[in-house]
Amino acid sequence: MANEISGTTTLYCLLGYPAKHSISPLMHNTAFMALTLDCRYLAFEVAPEMLPAAVQGLRALGAGGFNLTMPHKNAILPLLDDLSEAAALCGSVNTVVNRDGKLIGHTTDGIGFVRALAESGFSAKGKTVTLLGGGGAAESVLTQLALEGVAKVSVFKRENVTFPKTAAFAEKVSSHTGTPIAVCPMEDIALLRKTLQASDLLINATNVGMAEQEGASLIPADALFPALFVADLIYHPAETKLLADAKRAGCSTMNGLPMLLHQGAEAFRIWTGNEMPLDLVKQAISL
Amino acid sequence: MANEISGTTTLYCLLGYPAKHSISPLMHNTAFMALTLDCRYLAFEVAPEMLPAAVQGLRALGAGGFNLTMPHKNAILPLLDDLSEAAALCGSVNTVVNRDGKLIGHTTDGIGFVRALAESGFSAKGKTVTLLGGGGAAESVLTQLALEGVAKVSVFKRENVTFPKTAAFAEKVSSHTGTPIAVCPMEDIALLRKTLQASDLLINATNVGMAEQEGASLIPADALFPALFVADLIYHPAETKLLADAKRAGCSTMNGLPMLLHQGAEAFRIWTGNEMPLDLVKQAISL
Repeated sequence: MANEISGTTTLYCLLGYPAKHSISPLMHNTAFMALTLDCRYLAFEVAPEMLPAAVQGLRALGAGGFNLTMPHKNAILPLLDDLSEAAALCGSVNTVVNRDGKLIGHTTDGIGFVRALAESGFSAKGKTVTLLGGGGAAESVLTQLALEGVAKVSVFKRENVTFPKTAAFAEKVSSHTGTPIAVCPMEDIALLRKTLQASDLLINATNVGMAEQEGASLIPADALFPALFVADLIYHPAETKLLADAKRAGCSTMNGLPMLLHQGAEAFRIWTGNEMPLDLVKQAISL
Repeated sequence: MANEISGTTTLYCLLGYPAKHSISPLMHNTAFMALTLDCRYLAFEVAPEMLPAAVQGLRALGAGGFNLTMPHKNAILPLLDDLSEAAALCGSVNTVVNRDGKLIGHTTDGIGFVRALAESGFSAKGKTVTLLGGGGAAESVLTQLALEGVAKVSVFKRENVTFPKTAAFAEKVSSHTGTPIAVCPMEDIALLRKTLQASDLLINATNVGMAEQEGASLIPADALFPALFVADLIYHPAETKLLADAKRAGCSTMNGLPMLLHQGAEAFRIWTGNEMPLDLVKQAISL
């Protein structure tokens, strides 16, 4: 009966909409079983209007914790009892831990990204960063980079209706952390080129390069240079046009999979106090 | 990845208080995995005041179904959308199936008992039955025996404050099914002996014979005779004093484990449309 589900097994899960294609169950169950922890992880598709009932239900069932993905990362906030510093700052939660009935929200996307960078040999502290995009993923990464003490972040984002929201978000993170953050229009290619020249790290946190925008890149190939580390949060395709251009230019690169792995590992640490066995999990998810 | 938990795995579970010592997770997961059904079964300890939140949560999570044990078998009724005939009649639900968002309540304890009897070679239809006890287990068994068309049931129960409730319950089941049911005081040993003499089946549905009443029996050993089939719903101990006395008297006997197995198999059938692989499950639970 060792390592089987029993009456004492604790539930962890993902709430998303959609959620069925998530690799999180495979990641966490591989880790739970490798460490013989009496826990299992499932994924649940929960429509937005059902989120409160699902969360109150997980409380009533005594679930150990859960992850949130689209579209629940912001909507979860009023349903929680407390937030980590990073979660409060970026207003987004992807990991909840149940501590004796209190639900505490964390965001592990940003720290997952920073840990993945470190694993690739790139330490963010003191570096100058260009970040493309102003969505939820960009905000999580921006928040953590500021908390980690980077020298400066220049956020490039289309000058559309959400531009002022991104600017206000950057202002909040900057004033909380003391990290200088500029928000610039993506349309100003000359400024983007000049900013890149002075950067150590370029991050694509937009969806340009995936799905119907596969094959596209926001960065002219000739703006890339060997000393620039280039990260793309996209993992499908494994190599976007940006990463292919960056490799040709001699840059070190990282796609979105290591961040995905490390955001999960950080959630696992928060829930269990244990390190996720990364090699086993990478093997299981064929990373 | 075959037979692993994935993003598409459907949750089934037990809600009880306590619930952690249940063998239901082992039973159902053994069956799910043997049939490579993409389902898993966990047990949750849910305090009575948390039952509505737990049930609304399971609805929101899209759970496939769940079992209920003490103390939730009656309290669940107002939280459901519909009931089976037996569940409505006995006012008790141990199995809920989620049919496209509608929660339908069933009771499989009684049918589990009848199926277990049949597996032991005893067909209930047309038989005369003496039933000891008036609690929830007794009510489930009484309801199903009446639905199965037994000739008559004599219920013996202590003449205490709940005696009129048992009498009213018997009256309801009798008038719904047309099966004659008498409710008699357990204290009338002469009547009990006389009734037993005319019975084909004796069932103990009280807790006399287990825990602090282990070693006790409500039936004088000399009232037992070889043609009487003796069933005890108790499974811990595996052989109560009643069953030991019955074996010595030459009776065929059955303890509570086959009923436990068959109530689970019936729940499994309701949820999945599949027969539980009984031999594998018996082996897993060491039955």
